[in-house]
Amino acid sequence: MKRWVSEIAEVIGARVIGDDRIEVSGVASISRAAAGNLVFVQKEKDLNLALKSRASAVIAGTFAEQAKTTKVLLIASNPRLAFALAAKLLRDQNQHPLGVHPTASVHSSVTLGHDVSIGARATVEESAKIGNSTWIGAGCVIGPGAEIGEDCEIYPNVTIYSGTKLGNHVIVHAGTVLGSDGFGYVRDPASGRHEKFPQIGKLEIEDDVEIGANTTIDRGALEVTRIGRGTKIDNLVHIGHNCQIGENVIIAAQAGFSGSIVMEDNVVIGGQVGVGEHACIQEGVMVGAQSGVLPKKILRGKGIAFWGTPARPLRGYLRDLAVLARLGKKG
Amino acid sequence: MKRWVSEIAEVIGARVIGDDRIEVSGVASISRAAAGNLVFVQKEKDLNLALKSRASAVIAGTFAEQAKTTKVLLIASNPRLAFALAAKLLRDQNQHPLGVHPTASVHSSVTLGHDVSIGARATVEESAKIGNSTWIGAGCVIGPGAEIGEDCEIYPNVTIYSGTKLGNHVIVHAGTVLGSDGFGYVRDPASGRHEKFPQIGKLEIEDDVEIGANTTIDRGALEVTRIGRGTKIDNLVHIGHNCQIGENVIIAAQAGFSGSIVMEDNVVIGGQVGVGEHACIQEGVMVGAQSGVLPKKILRGKGIAFWGTPARPLRGYLRDLAVLARLGKKG
Amino acid sequence: MKRWVSEIAEVIGARVIGDDRIEVSGVASISRAAAGNLVFVQKEKDLNLALKSRASAVIAGTFAEQAKTTKVLLIASNPRLAFALAAKLLRDQNQHPLGVHPTASVHSSVTLGHDVSIGARATVEESAKIGNSTWIGAGCVIGPGAEIGEDCEIYPNVTIYSGTKLGNHVIVHAGTVLGSDGFGYVRDPASGRHEKFPQIGKLEIEDDVEIGANTTIDRGALEVTRIGRGTKIDNLVHIGHNCQIGENVIIAAQAGFSGSIVMEDNVVIGGQVGVGEHACIQEGVMVGAQSGVLPKKILRGKGIAFWGTPARPLRGYLRDLAVLARLGKKG
Repeated sequence: MKRWVSEIAEVIGARVIGDDRIEVSGVASISRAAAGNLVFVQKEKDLNLALKSRASAVIAGTFAEQAKTTKVLLIASNPRLAFALAAKLLRDQNQHPLGVHPTASVHSSVTLGHDVSIGARATVEESAKIGNSTWIGAGCVIGPGAEIGEDCEIYPNVTIYSGTKLGNHVIVHAGTVLGSDGFGYVRDPASGRHEKFPQIGKLEIEDDVEIGANTTIDRGALEVTRIGRGTKIDNLVHIGHNCQIGENVIIAAQAGFSGSIVMEDNVVIGGQVGVGEHACIQEGVMVGAQSGVLPKKILRGKGIAFWGTPARPLRGYLRDLAVLARLGKKG
Repeated sequence: MKRWVSEIAEVIGARVIGDDRIEVSGVASISRAAAGNLVFVQKEKDLNLALKSRASAVIAGTFAEQAKTTKVLLIASNPRLAFALAAKLLRDQNQHPLGVHPTASVHSSVTLGHDVSIGARATVEESAKIGNSTWIGAGCVIGPGAEIGEDCEIYPNVTIYSGTKLGNHVIVHAGTVLGSDGFGYVRDPASGRHEKFPQIGKLEIEDDVEIGANTTIDRGALEVTRIGRGTKIDNLVHIGHNCQIGENVIIAAQAGFSGSIVMEDNVVIGGQVGVGEHACIQEGVMVGAQSGVLPKKILRGKGIAFWGTPARPLRGYLRDLAVLARLGKKG
Repeated sequence: MKRWVSEIAEVIGARVIGDDRIEVSGVASISRAAAGNLVFVQKEKDLNLALKSRASAVIAGTFAEQAKTTKVLLIASNPRLAFALAAKLLRDQNQHPLGVHPTASVHSSVTLGHDVSIGARATVEESAKIGNSTWIGAGCVIGPGAEIGEDCEIYPNVTIYSGTKLGNHVIVHAGTVLGSDGFGYVRDPASGRHEKFPQIGKLEIEDDVEIGANTTIDRGALEVTRIGRGTKIDNLVHIGHNCQIGENVIIAAQAGFSGSIVMEDNVVIGGQVGVGEHACIQEGVMVGAQSGVLPKKILRGKGIAFWGTPARPLRGYLRDLAVLARLGKKG
């Protein structure tokens, strides 16, 4: 999508040096840029590369103000952020054909908003609701009574169980499963059998959440599993029943959460982290990759990094590693 | 589904205090209960909350026998287990429309039992067999010659490879893959290439197994991978070729098993556990979350918990952690 | 598929003892072999079992040269490798019906090679290309502009995002997602929101790669994620954006790679390994199961095994474990 540089600069809060009446049509990396592309430079040492590239315009920090160049410069306090915002503006709209694909299976009781796109062989079951401008990819299965908000993108082969609710501007990548039964059983000592504890709660996902590919999020057992507004979840993550995930949380790939975990706003979880049931990770805590948080444990301290299994503040974790290394050399 | 309290009490082995001729129509948590619901209280301290709720009937322990209340009480030795059994009884039957959905693709050679439900856009390939009262969800692909028993629930977008056998009352959640090729190659030193070792065995899953979402279980290389009766497997679990998993085993999310592992009955595996090839985990052993079991290792001892990588009895693991902490403080 | 023993022996480089004009029709394990099957013995102690089996022919090492038997022997320097090559030769061809299944949805702009098989309810979107003799399983979704080479096997319910390229002889197991968006955001300090960094690069997969079930490989952010020729990837693996994976790499189940990792040729990665962003694992390094490689770390040394978190050469890891055990006994 083409945009005037002046228009972009206004949205991203940048100051233009050069001709702001040129148009750009997409973002690129410096090495792959073509004429008409917009690129960015976060560090001064990369500026020359950007100026020598084929790009038409360059987002850069104040370090670029004195640069001698024929390229149009957009000076921003955080070039990387400015680039992300510009990319959003330049993104092609309406990539998906509007309407219901003839091979899709949409129950007659479904409520569809306007400008909806339902892909080939998607299934939308009884009483589900799909909001305005939402895309349901090919092969998705949207269960009975599920509600999906406006402007969502549901990539192919996603399964959404009955009654699950998604807010607006939610992105779900391919193969992900939302609202599946939690893992709860009661052992019958007489028979040795594990009897299924009812998994009849709900899953609610708030606005602006993005969820990666082949991730699984379970519905509540009797209550609600909730993913807060603006939270971003990577691929192959597991979130168990009854978890309460706050807003703007970051969860990297293959992390796994047992049941009934509370995670407050702005938490950051590294890849392959495991969290035991009923643990509470308080606002702004960071948990390093592969760490393990014990059941019922409370981690607190905005900006504090925890590491290791069982997870402890980074300082203690590094001390333990150093002790081991020292002893090893002695021994 | 509505049931008399008297009927429920009989099935779950509870003693009724109050009017056993009222009907209840579903289970709920105490906080979300409505009139007509059945709730449970495991601990005496929560009894008052339950008695103040909107629920019509309460399953509780003997501690509730003297309670002054207008609610109907069902006194059980294990209220949680009684509640799970009651929920099963109250569960709605026949949620899925019987018959083959017009958009499903069922090969003419397929054997279908009675009261089968095949969802939209499901594919059932040559010579497969689907037992009585089994539901195949939308978008599932059941490979050639696969056999699925009676009263199974196969959630949407599951893939079952050719020749895989499932017993009766098996539940498989969305996106799971059963019977895929194992990971086996032989390196050719001359070419440096990894030649595929044949993966032509089978996968057999016995009665009453439940498998979570996006889990993968590989077929045997030349032999059979087997999952024993009553075993419960969580989301995103990986089980490699030739594994022999016993009965009533519990496997939490994201655990992973290499090839040819033997796991005896009543084993409990925590989340994100990894087990090396040819390891043997004997009857009733528990392996804590994120632990790693080395290849060929044998873990034994009913009720013994193993922890850490490499997994060792819990006592030793805790001792190691304490040693590190003490030394760290000295250093 | 039936083959003369003489023909097999020639392809796998074995010397025949006995009648090389008999035919065999498949491979099997010793315990499950039937008449007409070919089996193999890697170690002399198993030779007697093989000779007593129902198999018609036995691949074995030179240790079998003097064996007294009526079975046909194929003497090979590496029986396991010879067996793998023989299995390839004996594998049934054309298992999938040629042509486009009537329920598949193939866009009119798609380029199909000859002898292509497109399964039931598969979707192939605008401008995609499918090479000769390639099979697309039921329920797969091949995105716009994706290119799949010759002789590929794409198992059911795989999702391939737009623009992804696969070479020839590539096998992708069920439920896998190729080319999904990477996990990249820029935090806006003013709003606290995580703005999506553009994920508009590509994913390229070279010839002879095999990828397990429910694995996810992300496209580059602005550049290309690349999987080198002959690399084998197990189930539930996560590979982040911009990763450069070399040739003949082995990656076991549930391993996870953050963004921009370089992995050179012939690397071996154990199950559940985690690798931090921008790490570099040089040629021929082995990383043990569950190890963690820190961001930006460089691991070097052909044939060197690294273990633990943070990953260190195996000798150091074992020393640390021994120190802990010794101290624990003292304490």
